[in-house]
Amino acid sequence: MTEVIKESMFDQGVLAKETIEKLEWLSQFGKDPAGGVTRLLYSKEWVQVQHALKEWMESEGFEARFDEIGNLFGTLKGKNTTETVLTGSHVDSVKNGGIYDGPYGIVAGILALKHLKEKYGQPLRNIEVVSMAEEEGSRFPFTFWGSKNIVGLAKREDVEKITDFEGIPFVKAMEESGFSFRDEFKELRKDLKAFVEVHIEQGSVLETEKKSVGVVHSIVGQRRFTVEVIGEANHAGTTPMGYRKDAVYAASQMVFDIITMAREEGDPLVATVGKIEAQPNIVNVVPGKAIFTIDVRHTDKEAIISFTEQLTSRINEVSKEHGVETTIDMWMDADPVPMDATVVELIEKQCKENGLNYKLMHSGAGHDSQIFAPFVPTAMLFVPSLKGISHNPAEYTEPGDLAEGVKGLIGALYELGYK
Amino acid sequence: MTEVIKESMFDQGVLAKETIEKLEWLSQFGKDPAGGVTRLLYSKEWVQVQHALKEWMESEGFEARFDEIGNLFGTLKGKNTTETVLTGSHVDSVKNGGIYDGPYGIVAGILALKHLKEKYGQPLRNIEVVSMAEEEGSRFPFTFWGSKNIVGLAKREDVEKITDFEGIPFVKAMEESGFSFRDEFKELRKDLKAFVEVHIEQGSVLETEKKSVGVVHSIVGQRRFTVEVIGEANHAGTTPMGYRKDAVYAASQMVFDIITMAREEGDPLVATVGKIEAQPNIVNVVPGKAIFTIDVRHTDKEAIISFTEQLTSRINEVSKEHGVETTIDMWMDADPVPMDATVVELIEKQCKENGLNYKLMHSGAGHDSQIFAPFVPTAMLFVPSLKGISHNPAEYTEPGDLAEGVKGLIGALYELGYK
Repeated sequence: MTEVIKESMFDQGVLAKETIEKLEWLSQFGKDPAGGVTRLLYSKEWVQVQHALKEWMESEGFEARFDEIGNLFGTLKGKNTTETVLTGSHVDSVKNGGIYDGPYGIVAGILALKHLKEKYGQPLRNIEVVSMAEEEGSRFPFTFWGSKNIVGLAKREDVEKITDFEGIPFVKAMEESGFSFRDEFKELRKDLKAFVEVHIEQGSVLETEKKSVGVVHSIVGQRRFTVEVIGEANHAGTTPMGYRKDAVYAASQMVFDIITMAREEGDPLVATVGKIEAQPNIVNVVPGKAIFTIDVRHTDKEAIISFTEQLTSRINEVSKEHGVETTIDMWMDADPVPMDATVVELIEKQCKENGLNYKLMHSGAGHDSQIFAPFVPTAMLFVPSLKGISHNPAEYTEPGDLAEGVKGLIGALYELGYK
Repeated sequence: MTEVIKESMFDQGVLAKETIEKLEWLSQFGKDPAGGVTRLLYSKEWVQVQHALKEWMESEGFEARFDEIGNLFGTLKGKNTTETVLTGSHVDSVKNGGIYDGPYGIVAGILALKHLKEKYGQPLRNIEVVSMAEEEGSRFPFTFWGSKNIVGLAKREDVEKITDFEGIPFVKAMEESGFSFRDEFKELRKDLKAFVEVHIEQGSVLETEKKSVGVVHSIVGQRRFTVEVIGEANHAGTTPMGYRKDAVYAASQMVFDIITMAREEGDPLVATVGKIEAQPNIVNVVPGKAIFTIDVRHTDKEAIISFTEQLTSRINEVSKEHGVETTIDMWMDADPVPMDATVVELIEKQCKENGLNYKLMHSGAGHDSQIFAPFVPTAMLFVPSLKGISHNPAEYTEPGDLAEGVKGLIGALYELGYK
């Protein structure tokens, strides 16, 4: 295949083959006997994969180095080394995760740098790929450890007292992997001029709309609630309907109304009741309590506020009608994160020029990009996820689409790094 | 107080005092450190209480004997010994049960026989009180073991292979208590002319309507269902509302509609969704599955059939509207059990004559009486349950109401045994 690569280095078939080979290679680090990949922060497999990636970066001729906490950077040096265009994603996985979520962005980054170097030589600015230490929060109760350290958001105190599910302290796991806290008094990097992350969509919008690439203009904000409805537990046989304060009856109306309101509101609003439970949860007892969660997301902060006000007042109305007591606890309130308009425009421009079958869209899931965006001009590229499946061994993206994502990234990095 | 008892043996205060004393005495057998009473079939406490009751019966001058399986009978001999009027209830409790559910019917029976004997001497027919071995099904997965043996419904094969939660075989527990299977080839008793059971209501109808006694004309039939709604699990952030097959959304409409229909149908119909669960039950995943139970009860079989047909068709409609797959599994179908009209009438008549503050009503819960009714003319008397609470250490009936229940039973047994 050597001739083909040389003759058409941005050829879809070639990029697809390279991407899949590298993803499969990486998936060996933390291969889970139960299926998929389990590669948790600072685990043996995690250490192995970061060192393997470092070797690959070096073999491609990039300068590779770890930061203090274990983010791995590989740099294609530019003529001007005071400015850096960064790409990459996270190397950790959830338990029994797929092989694409995270690593695809790293593989795409390394391949993009390689092909840019082969075709265009030294760039104007540094172009750097990062394999970030952690994003998922699957081992320790802390998310975005990798990106938050790069932008200076993660603090020693955030993780000093946390342990994993086996009781192993975060600090011990980090030190045994050969890493330590960053020096919080040291100045942060000032060279980062842009961050572009490639990631699988983890939804089915691109698949449904038959697009190969998504150009992400914003990441949704979210609010999460737990609603507790307190009625009165009673015997299911001996309590006439008129005597009841049935918590599940009230909750069923609340849930139905909330989801119906969200459907009427329409895209990009989504609302989900993911968890529900009744107490005492016995077939022949009228439930005295019902507890459910609500997850609301939108790209516009005002829209989230307005919808959650509506849902709160609807819940309170229903509660009153049913004569039950209801508490609504909002325990997450994250603002939407817009991507950088200039970077988005530039990515869109090159998608058009290079004939990519793309769509401008928002991200309904969280990504490292939302951590970078307030500090560095940031944008994202998505590729389709089969049936929207993610965090599951069945996670899959068509090879052709993987290649289109890499092409999109090559174009973006060319625009940002060579012009 | 001896004088008072002699002077007014049916006096409310006296009957209340006697009933409470005996209930408290019985509650010592199986007193649960966690509260209330735990007296499971063939346990040490169960053996002790049955023998203690036997001694009490004998001390009152009744002939007391166990049948093969451990039902305890105490007989006030009549002039005609070929006919027997039976009263009583079950001696076993649920785990952490109250002190009234079951034992109250036994205490009321013994006290009724004692006072009838004192006031009216030998009856025309035998009047017998039974402390039945088991009704709750709380130790072994079999209910009504006591009454089903009396009427010949329980078979050796029903329990030969069952064990309790500690793995102890039913047969071993029975034999260690000194009991064994009844001889299934032996003819059943032919002397039983009526059965009258006194029990706490386990509901709040009497309390709400400020009545002391309920005369039960029928025990509801019930159908129980498990409904499984299968949608599609999806990411709560990346799946637009229009792409979803949200199992909890569909289930919420089903539950709301079913309960609303039941409320519109009105008494004596009751429908309860006691259990509900979502899968995977995660705040940020659109639920792929929702499972809930329905418990429907009514005193009229046709009404149960008609209502469950309506609910089935409504569930199927909603399922279709939501594009989900739904299965409805009916796993219990018990017919209503009417009480004997003649016995009910006779009980009502004496309630009127004796000035009891009573109400004709149905039972929404199951009782030993439903096992007797197809074989022996049967009726029941209820007394109020505070807030309808039962199967709980907080189970409570006002002393005055306990006495009124005993009075009602005395009247009933007088009508049935002396006339």
